[in-house]
Amino acid sequence: MGVSGKYGSPKKEDHPLNHKPLFIRHAKQLVTLARSSERPLKGQAMNNLNIIEDGSVWIENGVIQKVGKDEEIVQHYQDRLAEADIVDARGKLVTPGLVDPHTHLVYAGSRENEFEMRLKGATYMEIMNAGGGIHATTRATQQADHEQLLQESKRRLDQFLFHGVTTVEAKSGYGLTLEHEIKQLEVAQTLNEQHEVDLVSTFMGAHAVPVKDKENPDRFVDEVITEMIPEVARRGLAEFNDVFCERGVFTPEQSRRILEAGLEYGLKPKIHADEIEPYAGAELAAAVGAVSADHLLKASDQGIQAMAEKEVVAVLLPGTAFFLMAEMAQGRKMVDAGVPVALSTDCNPGSSPTVSLPLIMNLGCLKMGMTPAEVLTAVTINAAHAICRGHEIGSIEVGKKADLVIFDVPNYMSLSYLYGVNHAQTVIKNGRVVIENRIKRSGVNA
Amino acid sequence: MGVSGKYGSPKKEDHPLNHKPLFIRHAKQLVTLARSSERPLKGQAMNNLNIIEDGSVWIENGVIQKVGKDEEIVQHYQDRLAEADIVDARGKLVTPGLVDPHTHLVYAGSRENEFEMRLKGATYMEIMNAGGGIHATTRATQQADHEQLLQESKRRLDQFLFHGVTTVEAKSGYGLTLEHEIKQLEVAQTLNEQHEVDLVSTFMGAHAVPVKDKENPDRFVDEVITEMIPEVARRGLAEFNDVFCERGVFTPEQSRRILEAGLEYGLKPKIHADEIEPYAGAELAAAVGAVSADHLLKASDQGIQAMAEKEVVAVLLPGTAFFLMAEMAQGRKMVDAGVPVALSTDCNPGSSPTVSLPLIMNLGCLKMGMTPAEVLTAVTINAAHAICRGHEIGSIEVGKKADLVIFDVPNYMSLSYLYGVNHAQTVIKNGRVVIENRIKRSGVNA
Ligand SMILES: [Zn+2]
Ligand SMILES: [Zn+2]
Repeated sequence: MGVSGKYGSPKKEDHPLNHKPLFIRHAKQLVTLARSSERPLKGQAMNNLNIIEDGSVWIENGVIQKVGKDEEIVQHYQDRLAEADIVDARGKLVTPGLVDPHTHLVYAGSRENEFEMRLKGATYMEIMNAGGGIHATTRATQQADHEQLLQESKRRLDQFLFHGVTTVEAKSGYGLTLEHEIKQLEVAQTLNEQHEVDLVSTFMGAHAVPVKDKENPDRFVDEVITEMIPEVARRGLAEFNDVFCERGVFTPEQSRRILEAGLEYGLKPKIHADEIEPYAGAELAAAVGAVSADHLLKASDQGIQAMAEKEVVAVLLPGTAFFLMAEMAQGRKMVDAGVPVALSTDCNPGSSPTVSLPLIMNLGCLKMGMTPAEVLTAVTINAAHAICRGHEIGSIEVGKKADLVIFDVPNYMSLSYLYGVNHAQTVIKNGRVVIENRIKRSGVNA
Repeated sequence: MGVSGKYGSPKKEDHPLNHKPLFIRHAKQLVTLARSSERPLKGQAMNNLNIIEDGSVWIENGVIQKVGKDEEIVQHYQDRLAEADIVDARGKLVTPGLVDPHTHLVYAGSRENEFEMRLKGATYMEIMNAGGGIHATTRATQQADHEQLLQESKRRLDQFLFHGVTTVEAKSGYGLTLEHEIKQLEVAQTLNEQHEVDLVSTFMGAHAVPVKDKENPDRFVDEVITEMIPEVARRGLAEFNDVFCERGVFTPEQSRRILEAGLEYGLKPKIHADEIEPYAGAELAAAVGAVSADHLLKASDQGIQAMAEKEVVAVLLPGTAFFLMAEMAQGRKMVDAGVPVALSTDCNPGSSPTVSLPLIMNLGCLKMGMTPAEVLTAVTINAAHAICRGHEIGSIEVGKKADLVIFDVPNYMSLSYLYGVNHAQTVIKNGRVVIENRIKRSGVNA
């Protein structure tokens, strides 16, 4: 397998759009998720994957040109078949490229020592006092230069791609000063330019109250509002603005001020809401018109109802609850209540150090009671809507970006059934095969 | 990556032992688990991995010849360095090849439909009435011929190897007639001969009561005892004898008869014990001198105590509880009680359709409270002891089989910390590199 392309020069120059058509043929199940680009899917619609059997896709210039039964596509392009590169997907599942709508991808260092301390019974406070917790990552990220941050983050991004993820949202929030927040966002920008995976950037200066502002968090909130947001916006480094709304971190009032300040600068609101206790975060998300509210383990019934009414996407992070050995968000209940649900890794060094969106899908089924179809919707079109990309990615439809994954399983249910394994075999980004992951089975056709 | 070797001819002829030495150098952590070959590790000893930093291993004729600091090995073999193949493990973790001591590897068909029904709320009885459950797999396995069973099982075995597993126990028990039980065991034998992974076979005719014997299970027990066990033993097709001791399946009395009958024919006892309710399975395991008792979700305190005293290995299967959305076995408590604990996938189509032993390690930490060191002990040396191979595999010591894994992480803790990902990068079986799994990071050294 390989991530091809030469790292170090911008991907658009480096990978000129391939003018040779790419023809993916004979998928046993082609999951299109068609007719979902305008609004995220909710309720029973999350189970409607719009599957084509013996499905094929014709791709040109990085864009999906035609989708249908193989015989239809062949008939339409019969004069041009000879010029296309053909990928045989016989017996396999083809889906839209997976989308991870909530990561803290760009950070330095790692905290496996803390994890072992926790398993041996240490409390969070003991770990903090031993120099651990989020402040350890903040120190490491502040100390790292652009190049180190880039290399450490790129390694994770390679792994995302290897697991079938073609678009990743990435938040700042380990800098906590203007200089270091900008450094994090610039690394995300560089990765977006150079790496096959598309990045979508979120400013999250309000991820934690810096140690020095502990006694007066409003001073830091003012700095975020008057200095950081304007400068991040001026430099065009982020599209979203996020805040950790939680008792002991930022209050709903502070969170609202921060999100509204972002809106004035064109940054769309997101919110880390109701993770540890009910704190009216879901309600706030609906009130400020947030694109998504994330975590939501302790969201109130009224909050869930308000999100359903305003079509705020619930980005659920079951890996975080799994890794922290906590209760899960009520995914089943939210789907049934009509909230559009997306799933994400929450990739970060403290509470969810994974890059495996496929495992997150397994957790969505086994720990939240979602169906195999719902979790697939949640990491494709609904995840795309959670980062305002529903018109561009997340489904296999004419005119969309040609981001697709061929999984080495015969149907979408098997992604959830054959749990714990990365089934992504061929990853196609912008109409180009960028991962070929195959165990050579000697003497037997794979 | 690739599983090399030509499938179709016996592996010993096909892969003549490589007389060129293999020299694995500079592991950041070389986990040897030395001095554990005689007896399984228990209690605090499960945390003692015997790690060598900057560790190296000299391998010849498929056997580990020397283990130590790189400088020691270099000094000892300085005249022969030029003739060796060198594998650079700088920055990486090297462990013994992983061992899976409890699988139902050899079966036909798959049951993802059932899984979806279950997530949508169907009960086990509804699934059974719709033709599902273990009887569905029994039908498919009975109907499959040797070649089909071989191909389906080989595909899973390839995946095990890809995840760093170099030895797999495999049970019969989907045949339920002499003919079909023997077919399953013969497939395991063929795989053992032809595949890089070593298989250890267990006869488990008493896996379920066949539908036709539902009213008179003792008739089937007699058939297992008087016909199946003697014939399986006569053909040398199994080393262990296992029984599903559970209310509604086989009683402790029936189980004891079956295990004692096996002992008369030289088949060592194993037991599926106390999975669904307390049924004195752990006690029975200690009483008959079983090598292992497996599952144990509902094992009694006396049973756990008896197992500790008799050093019966507890083979825990957290993936099964995860997939069935059930409570976990009390791994933490068993380790603390001095029971030697091993972990396994339980790979099977009904209750645990995974091949990922690395994920099972994650579950051992996150769902059973075991430490990263304990779960690594549990899938190496203790797993080896659970299949009576402690003298041969499961640790990196002079004279043992050269089965090793190089993981792309800097320390053993990261296998548990960076959860949900297969970190196995290079798999060495019998002193030969059989898997090279690497994402090419363009322009950056992987
Ligand atoms: Zn987050
Ligand atoms: Zn079993």
